[in-house]
Amino acid sequence: MMIGRLNHVAIVVPDLEAATKLYRDTLGAEVSSPKDQPDHGVTTVFVELPNSKIEFLHPLGENSPVAKFLERNPAGGIHHLCYEVDDIYAARDRLLADGLRILGDDEPKIGAHGKPVLFLHPKDFNGTLVEIEQV
Amino acid sequence: MMIGRLNHVAIVVPDLEAATKLYRDTLGAEVSSPKDQPDHGVTTVFVELPNSKIEFLHPLGENSPVAKFLERNPAGGIHHLCYEVDDIYAARDRLLADGLRILGDDEPKIGAHGKPVLFLHPKDFNGTLVEIEQV
Repeated sequence: MMIGRLNHVAIVVPDLEAATKLYRDTLGAEVSSPKDQPDHGVTTVFVELPNSKIEFLHPLGENSPVAKFLERNPAGGIHHLCYEVDDIYAARDRLLADGLRILGDDEPKIGAHGKPVLFLHPKDFNGTLVEIEQV
Repeated sequence: MMIGRLNHVAIVVPDLEAATKLYRDTLGAEVSSPKDQPDHGVTTVFVELPNSKIEFLHPLGENSPVAKFLERNPAGGIHHLCYEVDDIYAARDRLLADGLRILGDDEPKIGAHGKPVLFLHPKDFNGTLVEIEQV
């Protein structure tokens, strides 16, 4: 396998408006409007950098996958990195063959960008939650 | 001010060889040789992605700035993000004018890439340590 671009860095934020203001007004970056993603339990905002993206995540609804993260990190924090791959099944098979753990049932799911994704176990990746996304 | 590219994501790793092997052999990325940076108290390894870089950091010598991070996070973890700016003094002045805190004495230092850098207070940036680097 070969990982490609760093698609985005996801940051859980306690206040989407404040984070938007900081990145748009102080840092001067292009920032999207918030988008509720009820299927994923998050509201997302994207910061468009010239070469990559920052994805702000804020809990939406009950059982949000980022609610506990925000409880443990009330100021927010980096949640995951996302690398692009050409073929998510080939990537999965290579990761499993090398003894790395995939979260869930090893089957790609449709992620917040409408593309197949897998999340890899942070303990196998230097304490970093890694998402791989087929592009 | 206007932030530019996401220059790198820095990850503190407990084992540079294991991290290199993971990213080079399993993920298929281009990974540099380790470089000791005694002035900065770290050994660095760079993963070159098509659009950005991952920087592995490992403590070097006594009083390494990442030693405590590794004690608190024995598996490793994401340490900081680095955004590029054109003019680090203009960026600093804008950040200070907007009430944001810079770590240290507000004077840019020469960073691990030989360029002027500042580190911003994580509490002001959604729990994320942010480096800005003049390119």
